[in-house]
Amino acid sequence: MSKRFEMAPWTVTHSVPVIKDRWIDLRADDCVTSGGVTIAPFYVLRYPDWAHVVCQDAEERLCVVSQYRHAVARTVMELPGGVIEPGEDPMAAAQRELREETGVIGHDWRACGSYATNPATHANSVHIFACRVVSIDARELDDQEDIRVDFVTMPELRAAMDRGEFSHLLHVGAVCRVLNLI
Amino acid sequence: MSKRFEMAPWTVTHSVPVIKDRWIDLRADDCVTSGGVTIAPFYVLRYPDWAHVVCQDAEERLCVVSQYRHAVARTVMELPGGVIEPGEDPMAAAQRELREETGVIGHDWRACGSYATNPATHANSVHIFACRVVSIDARELDDQEDIRVDFVTMPELRAAMDRGEFSHLLHVGAVCRVLNLI
Repeated sequence: MSKRFEMAPWTVTHSVPVIKDRWIDLRADDCVTSGGVTIAPFYVLRYPDWAHVVCQDAEERLCVVSQYRHAVARTVMELPGGVIEPGEDPMAAAQRELREETGVIGHDWRACGSYATNPATHANSVHIFACRVVSIDARELDDQEDIRVDFVTMPELRAAMDRGEFSHLLHVGAVCRVLNLI
Repeated sequence: MSKRFEMAPWTVTHSVPVIKDRWIDLRADDCVTSGGVTIAPFYVLRYPDWAHVVCQDAEERLCVVSQYRHAVARTVMELPGGVIEPGEDPMAAAQRELREETGVIGHDWRACGSYATNPATHANSVHIFACRVVSIDARELDDQEDIRVDFVTMPELRAAMDRGEFSHLLHVGAVCRVLNLI
């Protein structure tokens, strides 16, 4: 672990957009590795950064949201959160998403680090936050959103993982990191 | 948590491939939610399933690999693993990837669950395995692969997270789950 961590970067010789709209931004880069090997194309997905929240109530229960996820064609239990809007502060985005999806007003907000969403393919980061519930207001869901809110204990979360319900591995990582389990 | 977990699925009214080759498979679905709202297009990324390995040596140190990741344009420390080939058993893929990337021959292999890689956009799953080091042979890297192998203690892994080096949140989740930290 004493060696210099950063390795030599690749060189991009050509880059073309494949598709870009509100929901996707995919580009194809022609690259040459530091060892001189050409990799072409190498696809890079550019999404806005995301913000996700590990929110606990006074009984240490975790706030989770469940919704139908079309990519996997099943319902998935996840942490509240979503896309950070252009120019929006990551913590403000986390506060907004928590309020919109669950109605929860949080306090004791704490930034718990930024992570790669998938460094093999994705250029963006996910910012993780922790907070405590102050109060619960009405939600503000988009018309296509059908989201169920639950507060679960850690044994309930573990059981939901075992049943394949809390199955978004990024969110398992977020819970683990925020609660200092690693 | 007593409610039925699965929510009503969406209906796909039209689906077109956007781009498909060896490295990417992106389709655009026109969908109607169970509430009757049209979402068109909804992009779905189809990758092969992945297999990743939490491999520990006799001193409980974790085997990690570091490589330059072009999507984030920096070096990232990750778990060994990769793509499951067509028809390949997930555990066999984990064993193969570990051997190719690190030279490690493992034993006491244990399947630790399958997770969504990102259910908002990705259709595939990541399968997590645990093993112990038996021996370390020569590696079999592809010519474009430049991968550094280290064995790190848990405090070293935590420090690498704090420095933003072990920054792939899926892999934080995998370590957390395999070591029963959640």
